[in-house]
Amino acid sequence: MSDTVPVKETIEAAHQLVAPFIHRTPIATSRFLNDLTGAELFFKCENLQKIGAFKARGGLNAILTLPEDKLKNGVATHSSGNHAQAIAFAAAKVGVKAYIVMPENSPSVKISAVQDYGAEVTFCENTPEARQEAVDAIVARTGATFIHPFNNYQVIAGQATASKELIEDAGTQLDVIMAPVGGGGLLSGTALTAHYFSPETKVYAGEPEGAADAVLSFRSDKIEKAPYINTIADGLLTYLGDKTFPIIKSQVTDILTVSDEEIITAMRYLWERMKLVVEPSGAVSLAAVLKNREQFAGQKVGIIISGGNVDLGKLPF
Amino acid sequence: MSDTVPVKETIEAAHQLVAPFIHRTPIATSRFLNDLTGAELFFKCENLQKIGAFKARGGLNAILTLPEDKLKNGVATHSSGNHAQAIAFAAAKVGVKAYIVMPENSPSVKISAVQDYGAEVTFCENTPEARQEAVDAIVARTGATFIHPFNNYQVIAGQATASKELIEDAGTQLDVIMAPVGGGGLLSGTALTAHYFSPETKVYAGEPEGAADAVLSFRSDKIEKAPYINTIADGLLTYLGDKTFPIIKSQVTDILTVSDEEIITAMRYLWERMKLVVEPSGAVSLAAVLKNREQFAGQKVGIIISGGNVDLGKLPF
Repeated sequence: MSDTVPVKETIEAAHQLVAPFIHRTPIATSRFLNDLTGAELFFKCENLQKIGAFKARGGLNAILTLPEDKLKNGVATHSSGNHAQAIAFAAAKVGVKAYIVMPENSPSVKISAVQDYGAEVTFCENTPEARQEAVDAIVARTGATFIHPFNNYQVIAGQATASKELIEDAGTQLDVIMAPVGGGGLLSGTALTAHYFSPETKVYAGEPEGAADAVLSFRSDKIEKAPYINTIADGLLTYLGDKTFPIIKSQVTDILTVSDEEIITAMRYLWERMKLVVEPSGAVSLAAVLKNREQFAGQKVGIIISGGNVDLGKLPF
Repeated sequence: MSDTVPVKETIEAAHQLVAPFIHRTPIATSRFLNDLTGAELFFKCENLQKIGAFKARGGLNAILTLPEDKLKNGVATHSSGNHAQAIAFAAAKVGVKAYIVMPENSPSVKISAVQDYGAEVTFCENTPEARQEAVDAIVARTGATFIHPFNNYQVIAGQATASKELIEDAGTQLDVIMAPVGGGGLLSGTALTAHYFSPETKVYAGEPEGAADAVLSFRSDKIEKAPYINTIADGLLTYLGDKTFPIIKSQVTDILTVSDEEIITAMRYLWERMKLVVEPSGAVSLAAVLKNREQFAGQKVGIIISGGNVDLGKLPF
């Protein structure tokens, strides 16, 4: 596969490749939340996806598009959570070895899920440098292929399939799709999908105030780090990459920040009213719509619930 | 409508009547739980139903089959929870007044949900006698029609539509359907559905040890009360009625009891692995399959997740 921005056919091919291994997750609706926002909301339930998050899609596509001679040495990555599970799951499906570097403070539920898929876990300090160093050492030793959590066009094409299904299954023309943004794999994939398959649909992102790198980068037109990191949305801590940022800059309408309090309120609505176990990062999209309800009132809004991997012993309510 | 055991056409008519108002809830699957049980499990997610429980179906059918001259005076019922919401919801949909008697110790999330639908709530002591007395007074005063939570053939026909969808959507012939049993509305409806639409499918029930009236009644061939009431599954405390019991006796294969510990374990799997908010009563079916896994190994088992109305402030884990 050529290493260029995914075209329409790349995303269609990704969907064909990953579909046999994933759930076509349902679209949920809620009269209560429609009334509350004045919008018509269509929730894409990727918390119900394999491994409990959309990242199963990108991990599968990245592995399934690798050539045979690379596959035989396995794959490696670093991740605090859902991407780790995604690569472990996808490698198990394809029958190759997975080496996963995880920060030593990762949630126990995520570590055990990775190990359950048969992946080899290496722990490291929770800094970007320590993670990369650990994974570089594994790659040098084993010849495994490093699969970046988001700055990888095949990962982006895989994540794009979530919003492709949302567009196909909503049963109506969406005015808006709202996705959370961390490193931007899901967001850039969503933006490409809207561009190719539903060009009238505007794509927005929700981002935690306590990891507000993407909104800064979007405004300043260069990749920036967050001024500070302090948020419950632990899946969205990273900053954009040189592959995700240009797609986001050119295709996304706006990035809207939300506080942890607003994230927890949205999360509680999803649990209490929609009966969905959603992790904080997965509630950020709804939080952004709730906060800006006058802006979205009267519109048909697709909301990507990105994941549901939360430690039941550490709930914020 | 004649007051006789629902025939096939009664259930088909009920499905046509209620379908416009309810979600056709998804069928979920879990590789993890299939591996754990050795069976192939198909979960009917009625926790994702309107009002968060299958009871929306029975409430709607009972109201939609009432004649005009009765409807105009409204409907009344007593319920500690999901049936209360079901009648409040259905009455609001049809545009009639609902009078709901609720025990004063009902979960706050259930009381506020009933009030949100515009129903008039009357509180009473939490005894069967106090409930009936309060609802009798309302009926005498208003001329409202009393809709029993389960001992009503139109309620039974409505609940039967959940397993009808499960049979239609599973994509395979089910060997077993497992439903929880309280008063027996869902279980008798499930048994009739299997009998009419999938006669090779055996119907089992799961029942809490701490509300074990149905298993006793099933064995002794007469309606019995539970020897003691002490269970976390607060939706299953009542005993069978003279309309539900004969259907269950003639059509159900067996009733399997589970402890609260087994219910909580099953509930935790549903939350943690399937990302579904499920109330204790809604986890009883899975608990019964997990406890009897040698019996169900190798079979295709439909499991009805009956509801998800749980107080997030009072979780058992």
